[in-house]
Amino acid sequence: MTSFGPDIHISINRLLARLAALAEINPIEGTAGCSRLALTDHDKAGRDLVVSWMRDLDLDISIDGVGNVVATMAGEIDGPPVMCGSHIDTVPTGGRYDGNLGVLGGIEVIETLRTAGITPHRPIAVGFFTDEEGARFQPDMLGSLVYVGGMALEEAHDITGIWGKTVGEELERIGYLGTAPLPAAPPAAYVELHIEQGPVLETEGFTIGALTGVQGISWTEFTLTGQSNHAGTTPMALRHDPGLVACRAAAFVRELALELGHPQVGTVGRIELDPNLVNVVPATATFTVDVRNTDNSVLLEAERRITEFIERAADEEGVSVASRKLARFDPVAFDPTVIDKVEAAAKALGHSVKRMPSGAGHDAQMLARVCPTGMIFVPSHKGISHNPAEHTDPSDIEAGANVLLSVLMELAAQ
Amino acid sequence: MTSFGPDIHISINRLLARLAALAEINPIEGTAGCSRLALTDHDKAGRDLVVSWMRDLDLDISIDGVGNVVATMAGEIDGPPVMCGSHIDTVPTGGRYDGNLGVLGGIEVIETLRTAGITPHRPIAVGFFTDEEGARFQPDMLGSLVYVGGMALEEAHDITGIWGKTVGEELERIGYLGTAPLPAAPPAAYVELHIEQGPVLETEGFTIGALTGVQGISWTEFTLTGQSNHAGTTPMALRHDPGLVACRAAAFVRELALELGHPQVGTVGRIELDPNLVNVVPATATFTVDVRNTDNSVLLEAERRITEFIERAADEEGVSVASRKLARFDPVAFDPTVIDKVEAAAKALGHSVKRMPSGAGHDAQMLARVCPTGMIFVPSHKGISHNPAEHTDPSDIEAGANVLLSVLMELAAQ
Repeated sequence: MTSFGPDIHISINRLLARLAALAEINPIEGTAGCSRLALTDHDKAGRDLVVSWMRDLDLDISIDGVGNVVATMAGEIDGPPVMCGSHIDTVPTGGRYDGNLGVLGGIEVIETLRTAGITPHRPIAVGFFTDEEGARFQPDMLGSLVYVGGMALEEAHDITGIWGKTVGEELERIGYLGTAPLPAAPPAAYVELHIEQGPVLETEGFTIGALTGVQGISWTEFTLTGQSNHAGTTPMALRHDPGLVACRAAAFVRELALELGHPQVGTVGRIELDPNLVNVVPATATFTVDVRNTDNSVLLEAERRITEFIERAADEEGVSVASRKLARFDPVAFDPTVIDKVEAAAKALGHSVKRMPSGAGHDAQMLARVCPTGMIFVPSHKGISHNPAEHTDPSDIEAGANVLLSVLMELAAQ
Repeated sequence: MTSFGPDIHISINRLLARLAALAEINPIEGTAGCSRLALTDHDKAGRDLVVSWMRDLDLDISIDGVGNVVATMAGEIDGPPVMCGSHIDTVPTGGRYDGNLGVLGGIEVIETLRTAGITPHRPIAVGFFTDEEGARFQPDMLGSLVYVGGMALEEAHDITGIWGKTVGEELERIGYLGTAPLPAAPPAAYVELHIEQGPVLETEGFTIGALTGVQGISWTEFTLTGQSNHAGTTPMALRHDPGLVACRAAAFVRELALELGHPQVGTVGRIELDPNLVNVVPATATFTVDVRNTDNSVLLEAERRITEFIERAADEEGVSVASRKLARFDPVAFDPTVIDKVEAAAKALGHSVKRMPSGAGHDAQMLARVCPTGMIFVPSHKGISHNPAEHTDPSDIEAGANVLLSVLMELAAQ
């Protein structure tokens, strides 16, 4: 193994320059953000740019049948690489850091090693996975799901996205229908650098998050049907108001999240009344409930109690309830060894570090099915994400990329 | 005065035939409803048809500068007529009874008298007022407001409606820019027959409502601004969720209406969240509060307590509040003598009768400013109105029109 000392650091200017160059592909005018939905011409242009950087570093590039791109730096020995990465697709109103940082941070780590003339013991790979955001093709984290064997390639190819094209058609059109085998051979380990997309690190004054796992997620849509009536002429006792029941449910979701305590979260982010007029008791109310927890038993309790509350409140109001699950993922726990290494690397580099779960989904949760996995978070200013105003201070980006460098070298040394 | 006995009755078949004929002007396919927004070509066609019926009865027809049409049957003496009427414009998805019944019921009363060879002591007039619904031009009850001097004619002419035309332009275009003086000379009395548009008469088993007045109405729009955040990554304690405050407000409006008791009503009929996504704490919530009461002091208390609640709840959540009044009308009390006459006429004709306020606004509340005024309600099936499914049983329509006949004759005899 090549020796590795604390005097090796990534170049923040080079990394910021790459983040800026990638954000220039379909930038959102007047902002720092960009818009590159999966498998569009803009995504192709972003992929081409990132692949050109991988080529500049003489990496071994493989593209698989769902468009995942993995670039590998050879190690002293053969065998499965220690892998990092993330995604470069964005939501329609994306920021420049979400996903991109994990990919370009990995390229920066490899360029740092190359520049220092260091060959790692094991190979080190950096990849980007297709359609992590799910903004064009459902489900999200599609590329990493197929990568680990969670969905058959043919099934993925047949998914139709917004604008009517399939994943398979669009991969072929943009030239990213590769031939690398799927499911992929598991890496030796996987570490993903990502912005927090939440306010915790900034609010509590930490520079680095050592991720313990990903929260379980439950999304349910409820549709309540009552009786539309004139708001002036219908006495209160004769009403069947589905909007009222939706509102009572939203208040209960907050109460329940507080009662169950951290890390339980609960959100009613979407409410639609019909006909939605000032002087009409609505006929229907449709709303969503998003609840998340790292402990699946508590998440199941939250789901059960919310459903019970809504059914009881609807019954009292004389309103009927229909519901459908929009999404349900069990919590994912990351590998204790990788978590320890992230925490230790951050401390060794002099950064404050907090062990925390991720509230959002990431490709790392798919990789966790097949190899020891962890994540490194850096703060998001005001917790803003999926928004052109997304921002992370350069000093935090630098800290995160140096932690990634250190953890990858540690893992590659074994 | 010509004698008038209980053996004189309106012809329900003739009245239903006119209601059906008027509903055939821009009918809503597959329903019993129709759509004739004020001063459109469809409204003109409806006006022309109703005026042709007035002409058939040799009535003296006057059209004023805001398009109100009044047809008068001469009495034994000159002087101000006893007047009835309503409106023939509809909401976009209108029923065939709302408004139309009061106008065609008045024509039916006059034809009944003509057929029986009866000349009333005082003149009897039937009118229809322009833009009662307010669906095209704001405010609603525009024609009757100008009729009683509540708005200057020039101001009314300058009102721009949906599709960009003004009242004055459209009156001229459809040929209903008349010259009868405004404000009009007050009638001797005014009585309006109307469907209830609520469920009370049907639910409680009454045939006739003797209206005591019109509820005061308060409409307020609240806009709450918080902090949009990721629903998975933002701990509950760091949230500023305007949607939650809106929902708590809606629950409070219901509680308050129940606490203040009948006839207080309160409705949150419109809620809009932005960005309205399952996994995003909203940035803003806009919602409306509609509260009504016959007692202005209670209505003022309701307005005050709702505002206080919202300000307190917003403050606790760290959300800012802006509000604007969309409408505010004080309660209107009808004339005790006219109310008594409606009740007595209903009883004399063998109908069950309930004294009640109107929860909706009507032209009668404008006429009440200048002459003794009352209203007659007939039941609305399930309280449905402003909807093609609006329905009143023929026997109830017959009962209401006969009460109108009786009350008009009583008033015209004095």
